[in-house]
Amino acid sequence: MTTATTDPAPQTRNLDALRAEYESFRARGLALDMTRGKPCNEQLDLSLGLLDCLGRDFKAADGTDCRNYGVLEGLPEARALFAELLDVQPGEVIVGGNSSLAMMHDVVVQALLKGTTGGPAWYGQKPKFLCPSPGYDRHFAICERYDIAMVPVAMNDDGPDMDEVERLVASDASVKGMWCVPRYSNPGGVVYGRAVVERLAAMKTAAPDFRILWDNAYAVHHLVDAPPPLASLLAACAAAGNPDRAIVLSSTSKITFAGAGVAALAASAANVRHLVGGLSIQTIGHDKLNQLRHVRFFRDAAGVTAHMKKHAAILKPKFDAVTAILERRLGGKGVATWSEPVGGYFVSLDTPDGCAAKVVRMADEAGVKLTKAGATYPYGKDPRDRNIRLAPSFPPLAQVEQAMELVAICVEIAARERASA
Amino acid sequence: MTTATTDPAPQTRNLDALRAEYESFRARGLALDMTRGKPCNEQLDLSLGLLDCLGRDFKAADGTDCRNYGVLEGLPEARALFAELLDVQPGEVIVGGNSSLAMMHDVVVQALLKGTTGGPAWYGQKPKFLCPSPGYDRHFAICERYDIAMVPVAMNDDGPDMDEVERLVASDASVKGMWCVPRYSNPGGVVYGRAVVERLAAMKTAAPDFRILWDNAYAVHHLVDAPPPLASLLAACAAAGNPDRAIVLSSTSKITFAGAGVAALAASAANVRHLVGGLSIQTIGHDKLNQLRHVRFFRDAAGVTAHMKKHAAILKPKFDAVTAILERRLGGKGVATWSEPVGGYFVSLDTPDGCAAKVVRMADEAGVKLTKAGATYPYGKDPRDRNIRLAPSFPPLAQVEQAMELVAICVEIAARERASA
Repeated sequence: MTTATTDPAPQTRNLDALRAEYESFRARGLALDMTRGKPCNEQLDLSLGLLDCLGRDFKAADGTDCRNYGVLEGLPEARALFAELLDVQPGEVIVGGNSSLAMMHDVVVQALLKGTTGGPAWYGQKPKFLCPSPGYDRHFAICERYDIAMVPVAMNDDGPDMDEVERLVASDASVKGMWCVPRYSNPGGVVYGRAVVERLAAMKTAAPDFRILWDNAYAVHHLVDAPPPLASLLAACAAAGNPDRAIVLSSTSKITFAGAGVAALAASAANVRHLVGGLSIQTIGHDKLNQLRHVRFFRDAAGVTAHMKKHAAILKPKFDAVTAILERRLGGKGVATWSEPVGGYFVSLDTPDGCAAKVVRMADEAGVKLTKAGATYPYGKDPRDRNIRLAPSFPPLAQVEQAMELVAICVEIAARERASA
Repeated sequence: MTTATTDPAPQTRNLDALRAEYESFRARGLALDMTRGKPCNEQLDLSLGLLDCLGRDFKAADGTDCRNYGVLEGLPEARALFAELLDVQPGEVIVGGNSSLAMMHDVVVQALLKGTTGGPAWYGQKPKFLCPSPGYDRHFAICERYDIAMVPVAMNDDGPDMDEVERLVASDASVKGMWCVPRYSNPGGVVYGRAVVERLAAMKTAAPDFRILWDNAYAVHHLVDAPPPLASLLAACAAAGNPDRAIVLSSTSKITFAGAGVAALAASAANVRHLVGGLSIQTIGHDKLNQLRHVRFFRDAAGVTAHMKKHAAILKPKFDAVTAILERRLGGKGVATWSEPVGGYFVSLDTPDGCAAKVVRMADEAGVKLTKAGATYPYGKDPRDRNIRLAPSFPPLAQVEQAMELVAICVEIAARERASA
């Protein structure tokens, strides 16, 4: 996490003045929402062409009638597009429905009930997952629902604390998996370094059926022109002799339409065979027309890259506003640190210990909804009660600015009240 | 099953002549496929308007931007459309993705892992399902995959043998569920009678968490103008004091596009709450744009009904050809019985015991693929080796006719060879 606490000339406001400013915000009766990483309308408008790009031409390149049943693993041209985006081979890709969350949920559920290529059903084995934290609440919710014990692991600037990860997976065969958002982690914006990726691929695990759920949700979601590179986990796992360890997920939810995009999974050929075997019981095929729409709309990865620059042009001013207001209001005061992400959908804000829940409550009472404090930790419990996830994508820029002014005021009040308590 | 074996003037052909006819078929090198209930191209063309009916208007009636995340239970107008089609209330409907198979799969998987409104997880309880047979192979495949023991129940002309069903559910608390295709059963074409529906709803079950998976796949798929009525299981279960027993499934897969339709589930309000709770962990919402397309295309249930008459006009000649050729070739010979369905997608053909596998093999060797013998029974094992599922929807009429001539020849040869063995 990039920090910004070294302003040489800290502003020192009177706590009463801050409280007055808070009350004047509250009196305005705002109703702003910074809770979820939803694309805004302008972003969705970038993909309006998706709605009518098919015309009435419903045939895939190989002549498949996309209106009918079949093609479980996805249209060949859709597999090829995701392969290019995810730096894998088309045969390593399964293209699904509209939700990568559903695909990862299915991977976990199938492992619980039927096992993996590496071993029998997890159910009854008291499985555990490593959860780099802060992390994505929906990952944690899957574990919680199915009684998969979550083991938090600290995040560094280049990914999870690998010494800790290696220690945990080596010593405990019930550690069956790990959640990762390797590029622009949710919420910290961290990009996993090459050394981290290679250690994840090569580390000795006590469980022969250990799986990394590599949620590459923001694979192409850059805010800068020269994004930091990300090594391919699938390639690294293959090179390290652990080809089946990596399960890569992605989708176009934040490329085209959040609710009507296309999701994909990439994994070893053996994993693809195994997972398609399960899919064959579950469905007769995903929506190939929507896969075809996406291929027609983008043509290739270069089309996606060009499209993502338009997203960045909309999003970057909002992210810049968040960090600029935090810096102006809080810089150098020692009351907060925050991420300055170069991609993804979130800014991660850390207050002093014991203040996050209070900040979220204060903001809510003044009309600004923030993600629930604790949501970024397993079981919704931030042990230090300090992390807040800020999601600036959906509200218009002016609202992001309003909301952030208030958030900064709340942070400073909470931090000072805490310090003087 | 309607039978047709009483032709007063049976044709008596020489077995050698039949074999010669078979060989001449084989010499033609046909490649016909009667295996699956896939809509044909002309049927899919009926819904071409679905591809462009949205234009670029992506807003639901309540203003929801269907491009974005959310609305787990489905668009209100899509829920209303399915409610009308399924004779239930909109609040009892969850509209899903493109696959009702996926929805029933999820219901079973969630019951296994998390239980139902009526009790804890089925996993570890050695659950059993009643399987009216012949039935749908994909239902049976779900049970087989998850080690749910299948108990076959015979089918009568008005549905499953209810004396047997009542006996089984009353005596064994491990009987947790039952598969039903209540209208135009797959493959027999049976429509469940009102008394059967009411007995299913009211019967005493040893398991408090017994569930009927009511796969109403052919709810509106009539081949005649005055289709037989089907009582509402949901209403009957509510009236009988077992409101949570019924889980109704349906989809537009055979109304619009087999691979890109919309699926729905209907159940009690308590079940809907329970299932949406599970869904909230699994996805952020299904494809609302496709739900909106369907509502725009049909407007209401009357629109669907009118549309289904066009399907019937395409399908009826094919079904008529199947039964006419069977009657002409085999009528009165005592070598087969078959269904004469007034809706749905299949004709069920019963050969003499011990002949079905041979007929399927003979047909295959002469270029006509049929559904694997045994597929219509649990574990793929027809105890009498006599049932064959015929799926005439996909091939053009001329091919259906060719295929059926051959099938009839194979049946007669196999039956005679068996009789003389």
